[in-house]
Amino acid sequence: ERLGMPEAVLCAGKDMVSLNSIVAELAARPDHPVLFTRMEAGQLGGLDPEHRAALDYDALSSTAVLHGHLPARPGNVAVVTAGTSDLRVAMEAARTLHFTGVSHKVYADIGVAGLWRLTERIEEISQCDVIIVVAGMDAALASVIGGLVGKCVIGVPTSVGYGVAADGTTALNAMLASCGQGVMVTNIDNGFGAACAAIRVLNSLMIKESSV
Amino acid sequence: ERLGMPEAVLCAGKDMVSLNSIVAELAARPDHPVLFTRMEAGQLGGLDPEHRAALDYDALSSTAVLHGHLPARPGNVAVVTAGTSDLRVAMEAARTLHFTGVSHKVYADIGVAGLWRLTERIEEISQCDVIIVVAGMDAALASVIGGLVGKCVIGVPTSVGYGVAADGTTALNAMLASCGQGVMVTNIDNGFGAACAAIRVLNSLMIKESSV
Amino acid sequence: ERLGMPEAVLCAGKDMVSLNSIVAELAARPDHPVLFTRMEAGQLGGLDPEHRAALDYDALSSTAVLHGHLPARPGNVAVVTAGTSDLRVAMEAARTLHFTGVSHKVYADIGVAGLWRLTERIEEISQCDVIIVVAGMDAALASVIGGLVGKCVIGVPTSVGYGVAADGTTALNAMLASCGQGVMVTNIDNGFGAACAAIRVLNSLMIKESSV
Amino acid sequence: ERLGMPEAVLCAGKDMVSLNSIVAELAARPDHPVLFTRMEAGQLGGLDPEHRAALDYDALSSTAVLHGHLPARPGNVAVVTAGTSDLRVAMEAARTLHFTGVSHKVYADIGVAGLWRLTERIEEISQCDVIIVVAGMDAALASVIGGLVGKCVIGVPTSVGYGVAADGTTALNAMLASCGQGVMVTNIDNGFGAACAAIRVLNSLMIKESSV
Amino acid sequence: ERLGMPEAVLCAGKDMVSLNSIVAELAARPDHPVLFTRMEAGQLGGLDPEHRAALDYDALSSTAVLHGHLPARPGNVAVVTAGTSDLRVAMEAARTLHFTGVSHKVYADIGVAGLWRLTERIEEISQCDVIIVVAGMDAALASVIGGLVGKCVIGVPTSVGYGVAADGTTALNAMLASCGQGVMVTNIDNGFGAACAAIRVLNSLMIKESSV
Amino acid sequence: ERLGMPEAVLCAGKDMVSLNSIVAELAARPDHPVLFTRMEAGQLGGLDPEHRAALDYDALSSTAVLHGHLPARPGNVAVVTAGTSDLRVAMEAARTLHFTGVSHKVYADIGVAGLWRLTERIEEISQCDVIIVVAGMDAALASVIGGLVGKCVIGVPTSVGYGVAADGTTALNAMLASCGQGVMVTNIDNGFGAACAAIRVLNSLMIKESSV
Amino acid sequence: ERLGMPEAVLCAGKDMVSLNSIVAELAARPDHPVLFTRMEAGQLGGLDPEHRAALDYDALSSTAVLHGHLPARPGNVAVVTAGTSDLRVAMEAARTLHFTGVSHKVYADIGVAGLWRLTERIEEISQCDVIIVVAGMDAALASVIGGLVGKCVIGVPTSVGYGVAADGTTALNAMLASCGQGVMVTNIDNGFGAACAAIRVLNSLMIKESSV
Amino acid sequence: ERLGMPEAVLCAGKDMVSLNSIVAELAARPDHPVLFTRMEAGQLGGLDPEHRAALDYDALSSTAVLHGHLPARPGNVAVVTAGTSDLRVAMEAARTLHFTGVSHKVYADIGVAGLWRLTERIEEISQCDVIIVVAGMDAALASVIGGLVGKCVIGVPTSVGYGVAADGTTALNAMLASCGQGVMVTNIDNGFGAACAAIRVLNSLMIKESSV
Ligand SMILES: Nc1ncnc2c1ncn2[C@@H]1O[C@H](COP(=O)(O)O)[C@@H](O)[C@H]1O
Ligand SMILES: Nc1ncnc2c1ncn2[C@@H]1O[C@H](COP(=O)(O)O)[C@@H](O)[C@H]1O
Ligand SMILES: Nc1ncnc2c1ncn2[C@@H]1O[C@H](COP(=O)(O)O)[C@@H](O)[C@H]1O
Ligand SMILES: Nc1ncnc2c1ncn2[C@@H]1O[C@H](COP(=O)(O)O)[C@@H](O)[C@H]1O
Ligand SMILES: [Mg+2]
Ligand SMILES: [Mg+2]
Ligand SMILES: [Mg+2]
Ligand SMILES: [Mg+2]
Ligand SMILES: [Mg+2]
Ligand SMILES: [Mg+2]
Ligand SMILES: [Mg+2]
Ligand SMILES: [Mg+2]
Repeated sequence: ERLGMPEAVLCAGKDMVSLNSIVAELAARPDHPVLFTRMEAGQLGGLDPEHRAALDYDALSSTAVLHGHLPARPGNVAVVTAGTSDLRVAMEAARTLHFTGVSHKVYADIGVAGLWRLTERIEEISQCDVIIVVAGMDAALASVIGGLVGKCVIGVPTSVGYGVAADGTTALNAMLASCGQGVMVTNIDNGFGAACAAIRVLNSLMIKESSV
Repeated sequence: ERLGMPEAVLCAGKDMVSLNSIVAELAARPDHPVLFTRMEAGQLGGLDPEHRAALDYDALSSTAVLHGHLPARPGNVAVVTAGTSDLRVAMEAARTLHFTGVSHKVYADIGVAGLWRLTERIEEISQCDVIIVVAGMDAALASVIGGLVGKCVIGVPTSVGYGVAADGTTALNAMLASCGQGVMVTNIDNGFGAACAAIRVLNSLMIKESSV
Repeated sequence: ERLGMPEAVLCAGKDMVSLNSIVAELAARPDHPVLFTRMEAGQLGGLDPEHRAALDYDALSSTAVLHGHLPARPGNVAVVTAGTSDLRVAMEAARTLHFTGVSHKVYADIGVAGLWRLTERIEEISQCDVIIVVAGMDAALASVIGGLVGKCVIGVPTSVGYGVAADGTTALNAMLASCGQGVMVTNIDNGFGAACAAIRVLNSLMIKESSV
Repeated sequence: ERLGMPEAVLCAGKDMVSLNSIVAELAARPDHPVLFTRMEAGQLGGLDPEHRAALDYDALSSTAVLHGHLPARPGNVAVVTAGTSDLRVAMEAARTLHFTGVSHKVYADIGVAGLWRLTERIEEISQCDVIIVVAGMDAALASVIGGLVGKCVIGVPTSVGYGVAADGTTALNAMLASCGQGVMVTNIDNGFGAACAAIRVLNSLMIKESSV
Repeated sequence: ERLGMPEAVLCAGKDMVSLNSIVAELAARPDHPVLFTRMEAGQLGGLDPEHRAALDYDALSSTAVLHGHLPARPGNVAVVTAGTSDLRVAMEAARTLHFTGVSHKVYADIGVAGLWRLTERIEEISQCDVIIVVAGMDAALASVIGGLVGKCVIGVPTSVGYGVAADGTTALNAMLASCGQGVMVTNIDNGFGAACAAIRVLNSLMIKESSV
Repeated sequence: ERLGMPEAVLCAGKDMVSLNSIVAELAARPDHPVLFTRMEAGQLGGLDPEHRAALDYDALSSTAVLHGHLPARPGNVAVVTAGTSDLRVAMEAARTLHFTGVSHKVYADIGVAGLWRLTERIEEISQCDVIIVVAGMDAALASVIGGLVGKCVIGVPTSVGYGVAADGTTALNAMLASCGQGVMVTNIDNGFGAACAAIRVLNSLMIKESSV
Repeated sequence: ERLGMPEAVLCAGKDMVSLNSIVAELAARPDHPVLFTRMEAGQLGGLDPEHRAALDYDALSSTAVLHGHLPARPGNVAVVTAGTSDLRVAMEAARTLHFTGVSHKVYADIGVAGLWRLTERIEEISQCDVIIVVAGMDAALASVIGGLVGKCVIGVPTSVGYGVAADGTTALNAMLASCGQGVMVTNIDNGFGAACAAIRVLNSLMIKESSV
Repeated sequence: ERLGMPEAVLCAGKDMVSLNSIVAELAARPDHPVLFTRMEAGQLGGLDPEHRAALDYDALSSTAVLHGHLPARPGNVAVVTAGTSDLRVAMEAARTLHFTGVSHKVYADIGVAGLWRLTERIEEISQCDVIIVVAGMDAALASVIGGLVGKCVIGVPTSVGYGVAADGTTALNAMLASCGQGVMVTNIDNGFGAACAAIRVLNSLMIKESSV
């Protein structure tokens, strides 16, 4: 956190004994806001009731916040999704940005299958400092946005789809091989990481600005 | 050929003894036009000089034609490429269509990195009966065209690119997982197969028309 | 839909809040037929009861139709399967064709393990405008049909099988590398996409015919 | 060899110092026939001239024989190929069988793209004790023969082809997942191994017969 | 079956409506023994009670037999496993052999981690006409037996293990690349296919013998 | 270019006819600086001599510049490499930054095998606006820097190494799965793309600053 | 065991009939301590109650011990983990070491995302004879420790993480390609194997020492 | 080197400008012995003649030594290979051990295809402190030795072979999944790394011994 990054606990794969002990420790530090990611409903249910009550839990993004969010920062981020099914991942990014105090807006379900949906919003989207593009399957949306905007574009491939698409590798590789030059990529379904990357960009910005 | 398909010899992987014997046999049947695909310059050079002289060879597509082309057929095909590097594959498709007597036009280097290049030509492209889209890397062009046109769209992934793109698997999978519903796909770099697929579609058409 | 393609909602991966809101919105437009694909029994059960009642649901293909089907169109399609286990995917194609108003017939369990089963029906199958071949494991049926018929052949690899076959990649690659030239391929288990591809072919046909 | 198997030296990957020393040692044992496989022309050229002269080298199969072949054995084997490009591998099998004294016949270029080519010869092929099927790309020929004959069928996938076919994995997996039950498979391009497998089968046979 | 092969129904992936209809049809033909493979307990439970009662079901191998087994044939087969966990697959082979009337013996848990276990039994094993080796993980047992016996050796890789071993690909590839020349391989976990392959070998044998 | 991005021509995979025509066209526009990437020595040699003379070619990075570079921009970038072998890729990034007018410094051969090399320079590196980390094999350097600095970190995996490392996939995946949260990644060996990504970040910055 | 290695039964994949029979047999030999690994809670519950009671079961590591542990041996081992989620695997190693009588200490959650956590303990860790590093995702910790310590370092990649990390292949390959020279690696999640490897090292040590 | 590890320069992938500058720098420090690995003949030829003359180059292992070797250390290592083709990798290990002053012996071509070759030498091999097993293809030798010896066994998979074996992944995975418990593994073809791992083990030993 001394790096200007959010403190987060990845709950996936943690046994309940360890998780309860981590939550207990953090609950005792009220001045220290923490984000929990990938917390399954089952894990939430297995927490000590008093700690569970202290958490602000969101089911769609599987995130929970303890002790409120960080102070507002300059900069704003667009979180764009190709389809409705990409929302879980987009909301993980949005919740992380909210927790960190970063202004943002979600533009859902505007993939290239119906190009006019993007065309109508591209002007507004291109006003943001950073654009996070969340897309599965062919992930063509990242390339198209990368070709239309010269700002920082961060692609988050999702595991949405089936057959060759299902584990997100196709979306990941399509983003990495994107003809839209300079599109950056995170791990599959890593909405948290994309938000952190955006925060890194805004960190540079903040320092620049404050030193003006 | 009795199926209305072009007769073609795939030269890749054939030893010169076998290839020379195949060419000799076919050269003796002047009423029987044949297409040779993936004939390397080295293979051309290794042919018996008299047979080599009888071939109409094209270096960019690595194809050769013996005994002229088939009579003209109804229907027309658009062959679209994302980049200049996809031309080798696109020209294999174009040469196959030409050999089979099918009218066609090549639209090169109009990938989504510069979307306006496509926008300017999409009206004309959508007039064709079949659209072959040749693209490597993220192959986003196939999805975009599939979303803009309701005719038959055949995607040919290419091995153009490097890193995660280099063997064409990313382009292949992106086309297969395309959000443009009903886009059909051939093997990587298979311009010949895409032309054959287009001919299959036109075969159905011809029969329909002639029976009207 | 303005492209002559069916409007479809892919339910796989959608959370119930999003799905219920999509269904509610579409239910309010009775003149607007819609197809739902990959709707699990659990998702059907989670819908608002009034909307659930309005759906024509089919368990084998996991599809549901809202507000009836589209008007009949010219053209007819054969849907062929190698084994009984490929039926789920074949029925997704058949339901999509039915929804779109396209005449079709299913030929099930006629794979090459018993070649006579195909031989007996190939004459009838080759009368159709488009042939969809649904097969898993070695997918040899697509190659054999591609070698016997010159019409448009669309291969749908399935994830039927186990070991090297189980995720459908073997069937997919075998179809892509098919020695039956010009066989086109869709994503694994994508019966919907194959039907859409067939509709694209028939779209070209319709325009041709109507302009005769 | 005490197991009734041919003694063979795999030359691929051996440095010339090691290879020359192996050849010298074996050349000194004239009563001891040996087969060299995957001997590149360059390796042949790098051998000591006197040893090179003693070898019976075949370029197409990249095999060489030293000190003649083994005595004739009972049994006979069909070696079938789908295409002309599969000949290199088929000839490696044929040379191994010849070296071991096993009667055999090669049936080349009878793949399922033109099913009648197989139909004309299947009766004759099914008379053999063992059938080796050499095929690349979709390898559908192995499944079709497996469905037509109840004798021992050994599939040899080849690396013939390009795109998804090129390294032979598609042919390998298609053979392993074959709907023709009980088809056995060897490594890609392993004509030698297929011949050895056939010899193992004939070994069982010989023992049975001699003990009758 | 006219090929001398067992008739079998693969239950995996079949919906209960299809499966019940197949079983009903076969139950009506008492002179026609049939083997069901990969029948899950859930599928057994979903069968019409009268048909369920008619089946001889074995839980370990997930097989069921209807209308008894085929008459005894000449030849005998060794089924060897590396570990106890490979038993499910080995028993599928054994049940298929039993159903087809082939004499066989199972040698379980004699992998190379304790080489003496193999050494003690290799003499007896090598008396059989065909040896089926069932092994997962490194599958080293197939190579060792292939090096010790000159008879027909059929490797069945299993999906036993975890990490790089878990899906059976490592065992499959190790068997395919075996230094024991002429070892033949089936699909992962395909005990049924290995038994069928053994039956193909014995078919050749039977014909030979009866013609002596 | 209207997006504030450098105009670049990827030479890899282009035939000489196409490449010469592209260069000729661009050479005629002296007010229009252009960058050529992945230009092999062979391609340079195949250019028309007059155009070749006009290019500023760099062999290590395989880049060429035509008509000088763009005007200087605010912002500065650190290009860090793990090993000496990563220099080719790092220099492609550096040349792209230089061409675009971006101040930068290269820190070579400071991988984690000798952690002190990094420790000595981390203070200086963390002063830059953007940090590009070029690393192959385990790519651990990206994670370590990501853990020490809160600014924008862009990882470029390289194909340096052999065995499991050789094609760069291990480095790519390690960077994507990095425990250093918010590290962004480009395609393997894509120094150009990393520079473009850095320019996108600086574009946001410039706009912010100029609007202060 | 005559090799100085622990006797262990891998429960994963074993059916309950086989497992109960193995446990019964071993329970009858009280002088013979045995370790059970990968015993799921379900398997424990399926054991005969009397045997279940005799087992010392640990849920986190899924291990059980029968008849106590082996006598203490010389040497000591550090078991280091990158994250809390790696504990299951680390505890499998620790339980195996404990069972075999080897002194050890677990250092948990000291990955490179917060480098100071490692720095504080590296001195103590480097005092041990063998260091086992348990890490998933990018597994950078193994490289960093390998660069700081010259003793025997054994890497255990874990399947912790998601996307490109989830099955442990990325961690495995990153460890194999580690820039920390001479780091040895085991299978994914194989804490047992790492402990056995450490015991092999200590076996050499013991013999050396006792012969001093 | 302060860790007791050899100092080595990996030449693969280094451009000649960088390599010559590295060699020049090291040549100036005569008290500082250095090992060069993976130095191709072409690279050797491109060195400044005076430096080339100072190198002790070995073509089979592609290694070169500058300024002699390190003082002798206690301990001894067996380097075992399955086949003759594995020698290049085994000699890289042997040269590294020699350079570092470690006593060792190479046992070549004793793979399990002829088990007696191993049986004759296993007694002698098991006397060594560390056993390095170099094997490609199925790598069964590592499992067999791991089952026969309780000392430290380090497996080095090689890229020897073709088809599924050719890139060494099969050998790598077979070693990782070895049924010989506690076998440790290095990267494919990494003879250098195996020697370094052995040196790490001996480092622990030396310290133990000297402190006795
Ligand atoms: N959803 C997420 N995806 C990736 N990394 C995460 C996520 N949530 C938290 N993390 C990071 O995971 C690291 C390890 O977390 P922990 O296992 O709690 O020590 C922390 O540094 C977090 O920044
Ligand atoms: N079974 C299916 N397979 C592939 N795509 C589908 C399927 N069903 C619907 N689609 C398409 O998925 C796209 C995204 O749907 P949605 O997530 O509802 O916005 C739509 O354009 C549909 O045409
Ligand atoms: N366990 C099995 N593994 C592989 N193939 C099988 C298995 N059991 C039956 N089969 C074959 O699967 C084919 C298709 O069966 P079905 O789906 O019932 O038509 C039949 O020809 C059977 O020989
Ligand atoms: N967790 C484990 N991972 C890998 N191998 C194991 C594990 N536990 C036991 N083993 C080994 O697995 C081998 C086979 O065990 P079994 O299936 O009981 O015959 C034994 O030699 C054990 O040493
Ligand atoms: Mg949508
Ligand atoms: Mg272009
Ligand atoms: Mg069937
Ligand atoms: Mg042919
Ligand atoms: Mg066992
Ligand atoms: Mg270095
Ligand atoms: Mg942690
Ligand atoms: Mg040898």
